[in-house]
Amino acid sequence: MATDTTKYAEALRRRAAERTNAYGDSIWYSILQLRKHHPDPIYFGDGAPAPEAMPVQRLREAAAHAWEEAPAVLGYGESEGYLPLRQFIADWMTPRGVEATAEDIMITAGSTQGIEAICRVMLDPGDTVIVENPTFLGALEIFESYEAKVAGVQMDEHGMVIDDLRRVLASEPNTKIIYTIPTFHNPTGTTLPVERRRQLLELAREHTVVVVEDDPYEALQYDGERVPPLRALDPDVVHLGTFSKTIAPAVRTGWAVAPQPVLELMLAARQLIDLHNDRIQMRTVYYCADGFLRDHIDGIRHIYRDRRDVMLAALEEHLPEGCTWSRPNGGFFIWVTLPEQVDVNTFGEIAADHGVIYFPGNWFMPEEPQNNVIRLSFSTVPEDRIREGIARLGTAVRSVVGEG
Amino acid sequence: MATDTTKYAEALRRRAAERTNAYGDSIWYSILQLRKHHPDPIYFGDGAPAPEAMPVQRLREAAAHAWEEAPAVLGYGESEGYLPLRQFIADWMTPRGVEATAEDIMITAGSTQGIEAICRVMLDPGDTVIVENPTFLGALEIFESYEAKVAGVQMDEHGMVIDDLRRVLASEPNTKIIYTIPTFHNPTGTTLPVERRRQLLELAREHTVVVVEDDPYEALQYDGERVPPLRALDPDVVHLGTFSKTIAPAVRTGWAVAPQPVLELMLAARQLIDLHNDRIQMRTVYYCADGFLRDHIDGIRHIYRDRRDVMLAALEEHLPEGCTWSRPNGGFFIWVTLPEQVDVNTFGEIAADHGVIYFPGNWFMPEEPQNNVIRLSFSTVPEDRIREGIARLGTAVRSVVGEG
Repeated sequence: MATDTTKYAEALRRRAAERTNAYGDSIWYSILQLRKHHPDPIYFGDGAPAPEAMPVQRLREAAAHAWEEAPAVLGYGESEGYLPLRQFIADWMTPRGVEATAEDIMITAGSTQGIEAICRVMLDPGDTVIVENPTFLGALEIFESYEAKVAGVQMDEHGMVIDDLRRVLASEPNTKIIYTIPTFHNPTGTTLPVERRRQLLELAREHTVVVVEDDPYEALQYDGERVPPLRALDPDVVHLGTFSKTIAPAVRTGWAVAPQPVLELMLAARQLIDLHNDRIQMRTVYYCADGFLRDHIDGIRHIYRDRRDVMLAALEEHLPEGCTWSRPNGGFFIWVTLPEQVDVNTFGEIAADHGVIYFPGNWFMPEEPQNNVIRLSFSTVPEDRIREGIARLGTAVRSVVGEG
Repeated sequence: MATDTTKYAEALRRRAAERTNAYGDSIWYSILQLRKHHPDPIYFGDGAPAPEAMPVQRLREAAAHAWEEAPAVLGYGESEGYLPLRQFIADWMTPRGVEATAEDIMITAGSTQGIEAICRVMLDPGDTVIVENPTFLGALEIFESYEAKVAGVQMDEHGMVIDDLRRVLASEPNTKIIYTIPTFHNPTGTTLPVERRRQLLELAREHTVVVVEDDPYEALQYDGERVPPLRALDPDVVHLGTFSKTIAPAVRTGWAVAPQPVLELMLAARQLIDLHNDRIQMRTVYYCADGFLRDHIDGIRHIYRDRRDVMLAALEEHLPEGCTWSRPNGGFFIWVTLPEQVDVNTFGEIAADHGVIYFPGNWFMPEEPQNNVIRLSFSTVPEDRIREGIARLGTAVRSVVGEG
């Protein structure tokens, strides 16, 4: 039990900084409450990899290997990150057309810290960040905590609509950052075609705006053609990667690629936040990934592809007319548009009563939230549970819209 | 070699946020340059524990134990920190008079992240942070990056001078935080007596100011009486601890104790920064510390005490008249006042030419820097090297002030 709160502690809290006004109630708390509605809820909320896709034995051996280097690596150091790991990352990106050296890369505590660092470097209060509408919830929360104005760009089944980006850029002269997840987008699953990528980059240059490419899912492609990352088309893009989806979130290891003048500032910012990543864990990730990660991903990709296919088939089977959804070529997410009668602000409890939980789409929207969309994640749910969960979702939707 | 910087990347950098103006040149770069002055420099700059004092074998075993829990703990989770570790910390603080439960504690990526989190929660640009003058360099950099005004309070051999604190508080109505290292202070080595602690807390309450007690060195006491931490005298203090000095910096594991309304905001802030600590490493630290850390520290304390004593004796032997220094009861640092003719802005190179490197005192001073003080760390330097290093320092000082 926590120590009792004093009136004085409340008075201290009332003096908190402006930016804390954006610290909303925890979404995890609301998810926790929904879980209590059913004895056996099926959870489509996870943005994490499947436990069975994590290379546990390899990680254990890598950790043992890393610990052999102690105590030499137990002091402070390696703010920019363990050099062989940065070299590995540079090589990892080469087949995708990214020309970068270890010196262009800094290791971060997950790509979340990459978003945090570039915000700290670029954003004064009142500056604008342009995002896809919808976009990654965690990024939205970071932008808001920097007291930025977040402006959404319309999306279609191919991602950001460039004409709308042009319009938003023209109307937001204080734009500092375009934040995009162009590949297997979270939450919609869409991928931006290469021609739109070039147009986006050109527009950003016209306005001297930093393009932040958040790219956590790139290695988890199941079909469709390969599209080059923005960083392959433009060396001045800030590109964020992570091992959270391909190895494990808990190791908190990601990276940022940035042009030197920006990277230097990001590194300075990062040193203020927490000095550097865990040095043992950087080695663990390196010894795990080196000579292994490509084959490992090739070996587990089918898990996600099969789950996606099962979810798509189940949606086809169980959702009533008037529902549509995205068909992602990779990543973890399917974006479902429900009939307009469904309001996600109340439907979450109805679905939870039926034993299915997801993230409502309006959580991902900076403005004018659309209230009949939801995000389903298939990454951590076994196939039979996906079928059962989507059947439950179908029943829940019908309970609102009728059997139509 | 880094990718060439484009003119466009320079243009992006010119649009960086105001706060980046405080990102100065890296002190590590200047230290690196000084190291080149002598073939065998002796380095008194380290704020890290001695490698021979780190429980390496125990850590290895603890890590192997922790990895046994994978894959169950490889996903996202435990933002507030691994519960048994928080329970251990609560128990760890009990003998010092701190009454806190696991629920009052969050795990941080080193105490640096604790400073970062409380700043993010409390500081709007232009707010004031009151600090000891001098104070921990890393904290100063964080305060400046929040565009805070940093106001220094005069110190004597017993730490903060309370009359001066009263004066500063009265003249700084926007004060949000008093940041203090009351025990084995960095950089001066002083410890604030209990009566002054009570006065400080009373003054803070009069002004509704958050007291942040940074307490990394408490377990490393060599003599003198035990003084209760501020948090033992007042449950509304924000108290920061770390395993960086007692286990190893590289594991990046510290903690914050705070009253609930403040802790909730700090936790929200921390989730924006990087979600949570490495879950394997939190378990590693727990399995290492539990049932072991107290005995371990009792077993290695003599290393630091002996090094302190050797350094004090060497200062007595080798420094010319007109030099004075602190006599810390714990921690890693001795604060040396050199004759007024010595200017640390130029003396660093002279000392480096003689083969001795330290941190100049003005780096630790927010205002009106005093230019004849230096910080010597004895924690990582073997005794014979301490003797040799201080002899070199004496020679360097004499080269400036004459043989007087």
